Amino acid sequence: MKELEERIISEGRVLPGNVLKVDSFLNHQVDQRLLTNIGKEFARLFADEGITKILTIEASGIAVAAFTSMAMDVPFVFAKKTGSLNLEGDLLTSSVMSYTYQKEYAIAVEAKFLSPADRVLIVDDFLANGMALKALLAIIRQSGAETAGIGICIEKAYQHGGDEIRRLGYHLESLAVIEAMSEEGITFRPRPEK
Amino acid sequence: MKELEERIISEGRVLPGNVLKVDSFLNHQVDQRLLTNIGKEFARLFADEGITKILTIEASGIAVAAFTSMAMDVPFVFAKKTGSLNLEGDLLTSSVMSYTYQKEYAIAVEAKFLSPADRVLIVDDFLANGMALKALLAIIRQSGAETAGIGICIEKAYQHGGDEIRRLGYHLESLAVIEAMSEEGITFRPRPEK
Repeated sequence: MKELEERIISEGRVLPGNVLKVDSFLNHQVDQRLLTNIGKEFARLFADEGITKILTIEASGIAVAAFTSMAMDVPFVFAKKTGSLNLEGDLLTSSVMSYTYQKEYAIAVEAKFLSPADRVLIVDDFLANGMALKALLAIIRQSGAETAGIGICIEKAYQHGGDEIRRLGYHLESLAVIEAMSEEGITFRPRPEK
Repeated sequence: MKELEERIISEGRVLPGNVLKVDSFLNHQVDQRLLTNIGKEFARLFADEGITKILTIEASGIAVAAFTSMAMDVPFVFAKKTGSLNLEGDLLTSSVMSYTYQKEYAIAVEAKFLSPADRVLIVDDFLANGMALKALLAIIRQSGAETAGIGICIEKAYQHGGDEIRRLGYHLESLAVIEAMSEEGITFRPRPEK
């Protein structure tokens, strides 16, 4: 998505430790016009998948899910990190090893919000090594629902989570795929024509 | 807001400890149609306030902020709970005593996202004793921006945070105000005509 790549180039900052800061428009301050277009782009890319529900993980995935749910007119659910939790009843749970914080945490979704009849679109702001995404896939598997698509704003291809997920056969669409990144610049994977 | 009150009546559940569960439409699963209407209602109620930015706190405030930012066509910022944090540079910080979890936590906003020229609308899903809201007000004060409005989905009037904030002179609008609540039922404060 050209508009997103341009924003990454103009406002993103590369920090030591492979950190890309996009907090002026995506995950701290959120640009409602860009996100509206991101939501519409996911709606277009997954229009044929019969999506009935969107799933993401708190916190920064929620904004992406909100704009996508509006564009697709389907509800969304956000997995909660346990500990910041106020859940009850039957839970679907999984765990995530966080690259950023170097620790493991549990996530959960109340079972009643995903059913075997659902065709789920996972969305998130970033995909790097894919740990959070795999935990969401595990939760969907537990529910009996089908993962019908995965929509990512920014994929860090050099951390290989995305290509691993593609090899498993999932319909994964990343709006900007970073092949390489340093303080000198950012190289994107060429955008497919779709 | 009649639509929100009706959803609370039909789907909300009152649990021991004054907990109101509205996780089927507001803060775990999110109903995009209800939230679209909530965003539009806040846009209508604060139309004369010259809002330039929306502020909320992760995680469940993000959905409310996203739909409101769309309706008002202004960006939003979500305060981060430190510890779940990836911040840098000058920070505006405050602390919140959580009623639900009985512990104190710090929140932060990068200073560059709030300026003295901003007229800020705070939004959140719940207002009870007002601890989270006061922390957001402190952050706005530090920035030099003006708090031009506060939009809350569900206010628990019997925990008094809302009326305390009103006495301080803030323009606070709550879409559903619960006067009393038990497993037998929920009593709302009569809705003003606006």
